[in-house]
Amino acid sequence: MKFSDRLYNFYAGIKMKKLGMYFIVASSIIVIWKLTVIESGVDRLQILREALDLHKEELQLSQQQLLLLEHLESNIDPKSIPTVYAITPTYYRYVQKAELTRISQTLKLVPNVHWIVVEDSEEKTNLVRNLILESKLIVTHLNAKTPPLEKFKDKERWKKHRGVEQRNAALAWLRNNLHLNKDKGVVYFMDDDNTYSVKLFHEMRKVKKVGVWPVGLVGGLNVETPILDSATGKVKRYKSGWKPNRKFAIDMAGFAINLDLILAKPQASFSYQMEKGLQESEFLSYFTTKEELEPLADNCTKVYVWHTRTEKPNVNGVVDGFEV
Amino acid sequence: MKFSDRLYNFYAGIKMKKLGMYFIVASSIIVIWKLTVIESGVDRLQILREALDLHKEELQLSQQQLLLLEHLESNIDPKSIPTVYAITPTYYRYVQKAELTRISQTLKLVPNVHWIVVEDSEEKTNLVRNLILESKLIVTHLNAKTPPLEKFKDKERWKKHRGVEQRNAALAWLRNNLHLNKDKGVVYFMDDDNTYSVKLFHEMRKVKKVGVWPVGLVGGLNVETPILDSATGKVKRYKSGWKPNRKFAIDMAGFAINLDLILAKPQASFSYQMEKGLQESEFLSYFTTKEELEPLADNCTKVYVWHTRTEKPNVNGVVDGFEV
Repeated sequence: MKFSDRLYNFYAGIKMKKLGMYFIVASSIIVIWKLTVIESGVDRLQILREALDLHKEELQLSQQQLLLLEHLESNIDPKSIPTVYAITPTYYRYVQKAELTRISQTLKLVPNVHWIVVEDSEEKTNLVRNLILESKLIVTHLNAKTPPLEKFKDKERWKKHRGVEQRNAALAWLRNNLHLNKDKGVVYFMDDDNTYSVKLFHEMRKVKKVGVWPVGLVGGLNVETPILDSATGKVKRYKSGWKPNRKFAIDMAGFAINLDLILAKPQASFSYQMEKGLQESEFLSYFTTKEELEPLADNCTKVYVWHTRTEKPNVNGVVDGFEV
Repeated sequence: MKFSDRLYNFYAGIKMKKLGMYFIVASSIIVIWKLTVIESGVDRLQILREALDLHKEELQLSQQQLLLLEHLESNIDPKSIPTVYAITPTYYRYVQKAELTRISQTLKLVPNVHWIVVEDSEEKTNLVRNLILESKLIVTHLNAKTPPLEKFKDKERWKKHRGVEQRNAALAWLRNNLHLNKDKGVVYFMDDDNTYSVKLFHEMRKVKKVGVWPVGLVGGLNVETPILDSATGKVKRYKSGWKPNRKFAIDMAGFAINLDLILAKPQASFSYQMEKGLQESEFLSYFTTKEELEPLADNCTKVYVWHTRTEKPNVNGVVDGFEV
């Protein structure tokens, strides 16, 4: 008997009539269910497609941008690395915007950085506010006015003490807003006129207590640097253009301090009482000893920061209507 | 008559028997075809899912890196924008490495840039070679030695003419290696000591023939700038600290030239015969007229480049073993 005949007989059988209908209904339900399963699969994949569309912009990276990302420590999960709190005192002068532009562009290449900009001014200025806004960096903007020159007997001392109020304001901010054992990071004093290689910031994340490294073009030398004991690898003395026998003969650009220490020693700050040129040394004395210093930058053999100074421009005519 | 009875009658009808079978087969084929269509849709979406997996790594960007990407002209397809050929003459002095570090870090934030570094030296130096290598930028490294001071009657002229050999070497490289109507780009003379906002490079890509913009802190002024005719929006004169009546009273940092013009006018170059301070003006005369200049940087109202000068450091002691 042919299949078609059997099928006909099946439907034709009076007794089988109802059963046949059940079969058709059941088959239909199975087909519909199957279709539903496939459809829900499609829906799930649809969500993925939407996700892909959403990220399309990020995926449309140029070769250069990808290269850039590779640079940016892409092997390191940015959440796992400690934040660098870079403290930058700044004051108005002709080159301020240029210097801050330069420094903000350097920080754009550094992952996980929190920039604390402290203006030496009665009020925050629009120049700095706009620059910070446009940088899209994570920034805390503060201001603290240095007492006027007249309060200081010698002008040199005043000059040397620029930054005292501003650095202390930044330290106060850290202590008021961050929490010991919860927030992790490294604190670095980053002046607005020095030159910083991005590599320096990779180094300072290694700091457990206080890290140190060479600084180029400072103190009348090509480089000021801690000198290491070849046996222990620890700092034994300093090569410094001025008073190398200071407890810590290190420029402000030559060290970073773990945030834990900054938070654990709230009394540590800069002061006008500190002798000229001893700010760094006295400040570091709150936290560590020479023996404990951690030499970085390839055992203090590489220069990743330069104490460059920008010439004061000789401006004898002003064109109105420009923010320079 | 109930539907089930009618269906039964349909299948039961002898004459209709064969037709009924055709209907079932046709229906089955349609259902199978439909399922196949849906499945192939699933397959296509599967490919998308794989693509998404493939790009997962790029998508696992930190917030900061994404922020950075947003900055980086993420709205612009980097392939569609013309290449900026940035020509940087450089010579050895204490601040060279610091300056080149700074400038290379700025260029890392610029998409589609080709950096042409020309050393004023008999041979390429390892300092510059290593710096270029580490920058991972697209770089052409050249060298061209400036004739010694003795060849020039006055020292000032020699100073002013630094860069002549180097800029010409870069122009020669462009003309020997790129092709008119094939390669598209903009040529910019980017000294190693000025300060450049990343925004400047976005501006210069708009250049059709020659684009111009203000330069901060130059010529004894807060800013040198083309002055526009408010009616036509075109350059009518210059605000310049020195000889504002020059045909083009524009600093080297204040203009960019379309690559087409550089390639179409192979005779255009810098020369020791050009009068002191007229290098820019005479060079620009090869390519354009004042009337044709394209004012950029928000109609020449914004400063995106500063003619900063880094102080020569007072180095009176050298610590050996450091590349500074």
